[in-house]
Amino acid sequence: MAILVTGGGGFVGFNLVEALLARGEEVILFDSGALPAVAQRALSGHARQLNVARGDIRDAAQVIQVFESHRIDYIAHCAAVTSGAAREAREPAAIVDVNINGTLSILDAARTHGVKRVVYASSGAVYGEALYRLARLYEESPVLPLSLYAITKFAAERVCARMKELWQTEVVCARLGTVIGPWERNTGVRDSYGTHTQLAALAVAGRTAVLTQREVRRDWIYSRDVAAGLLALLDARAPRHPVYNLSSGMEWKGAIRGWCEALKSEFPDFDYRTAADDEQANIWYTDKDRALMDVGRIAQDIGFVPRFGPREAYADYLEWLKATPDFWR
Amino acid sequence: MAILVTGGGGFVGFNLVEALLARGEEVILFDSGALPAVAQRALSGHARQLNVARGDIRDAAQVIQVFESHRIDYIAHCAAVTSGAAREAREPAAIVDVNINGTLSILDAARTHGVKRVVYASSGAVYGEALYRLARLYEESPVLPLSLYAITKFAAERVCARMKELWQTEVVCARLGTVIGPWERNTGVRDSYGTHTQLAALAVAGRTAVLTQREVRRDWIYSRDVAAGLLALLDARAPRHPVYNLSSGMEWKGAIRGWCEALKSEFPDFDYRTAADDEQANIWYTDKDRALMDVGRIAQDIGFVPRFGPREAYADYLEWLKATPDFWR
Repeated sequence: MAILVTGGGGFVGFNLVEALLARGEEVILFDSGALPAVAQRALSGHARQLNVARGDIRDAAQVIQVFESHRIDYIAHCAAVTSGAAREAREPAAIVDVNINGTLSILDAARTHGVKRVVYASSGAVYGEALYRLARLYEESPVLPLSLYAITKFAAERVCARMKELWQTEVVCARLGTVIGPWERNTGVRDSYGTHTQLAALAVAGRTAVLTQREVRRDWIYSRDVAAGLLALLDARAPRHPVYNLSSGMEWKGAIRGWCEALKSEFPDFDYRTAADDEQANIWYTDKDRALMDVGRIAQDIGFVPRFGPREAYADYLEWLKATPDFWR
Repeated sequence: MAILVTGGGGFVGFNLVEALLARGEEVILFDSGALPAVAQRALSGHARQLNVARGDIRDAAQVIQVFESHRIDYIAHCAAVTSGAAREAREPAAIVDVNINGTLSILDAARTHGVKRVVYASSGAVYGEALYRLARLYEESPVLPLSLYAITKFAAERVCARMKELWQTEVVCARLGTVIGPWERNTGVRDSYGTHTQLAALAVAGRTAVLTQREVRRDWIYSRDVAAGLLALLDARAPRHPVYNLSSGMEWKGAIRGWCEALKSEFPDFDYRTAADDEQANIWYTDKDRALMDVGRIAQDIGFVPRFGPREAYADYLEWLKATPDFWR
């Protein structure tokens, strides 16, 4: 099958592209930015399966061009502006355009070109206030998206559901948990990096991390599990629900200090310590304590269960760090 | 004060324009369509207070033009595409553009031009599934917007809340109930008419209405109460909440047959009856039974209480019908 991955150069998109290529699929990687050399090299063994198309999903002509140049059976729609507050204050219209109008544009192209299914990479951020008020988040839990990122992701989810109803375009949404792993980088549309990435950068640079006294509670999910989950949603015979949580479904206890230990074993110049009472940490944490996203629905309907706990994730992530030293240059 | 009313030629907008003019305010009526002669005549006594500006809120240059041509202290943002399913299937992008991007554009102009407050006319439709599942709808009740109209109205509400936080732009949202009353007409962006309007049209034409056997349950609100509620939100010293329900807060029992009786008293050629078992009604109802929207918050915070029950609303509406016969030509 031929799969269009929008935002294929981004964090989630690129992990999915790797997984698709490894399985022998044909991939059309669509992204507004150029792939850095290190990413191009990572895909170089799959040149015959891979088409890279540069374009902006806000530009209808560029989207049409991709569909007219390639047979596309499936779409994984990962293109988004992963905005922080500064960008949201500065250019809210661009975020709305990419995240909502862009999604609609992809759905329209999917309908026109007889695409078999669109999988939309949404975000656990849509739960908003519920992340901090409820004990556990089910797909049916009430949402109150707070950031423009979350607002636009939720609107796009609902647009997917509505256009499926009106157009019979097959589309399913995955609400991603907090993703960690290879390939998180500055693409121009990602405004902050996860805690693990910040620590990896310090480790590679041989510096010392100063951690806050308390870790955030989080059901991190490894990027390769996210890719596998999206793949499962592409493959599934007939997903019964419009939305699926895609997270690890469990709290990674002591995850940050665990990652520091793992990094220390490979990068002897790296060290970490806890900030003193009057000291500032030099890494920051993704958001605050969050409720766990329940993953019963995707397990039951789709048969997908995450493979990576912290131990497996860190081993794999370290392998990648060693094999990809030029990622940090 | 000078108030910009976007969508000022529409159903809700025009009722608000009338109320503002009656109170002696200066109004800038902004609309994408031309005002019909009957509407122009209705405002003709207030020519010195009124500025009519034609333009599309999707066009940034046209929005800027309005702000540069007029002092604007307050904005009532009523412009929207009130879409039905056919339009949602046909031109979803235009609906997203007007209802979300257009709202953002108005907020941006409000910030730039030091507007004191924006009141956004949202809709009870945002509750979506909750309208049919819960007994009573509070502003904090969970939402699941279903139609593209509802999805975009909810997204716009959340955009208002977020940009208020980021820009300190004063904005408050009103979730309107099911509005009945004068001036509901085909503006090009309203896809269906309320039951009361359909019956009024039959009455003026001297025809017979065939009703369904059972009425829908609904907390209708009279359009002049909606205008008064929006005005109260413009006037309020400091609304404590981002969103207020604006409905009558009570079920109008036998509202449809009551309206038919009222129409019969003024239009002797009009009649109505209930459809036989094998017969189709010739009017349709706005949606199905809905939960009532609680109006305790707007009463408590803003001091606004609707004045029109069915009796008062029908008397006033009949007066308008008699005084405005050319509305139906």
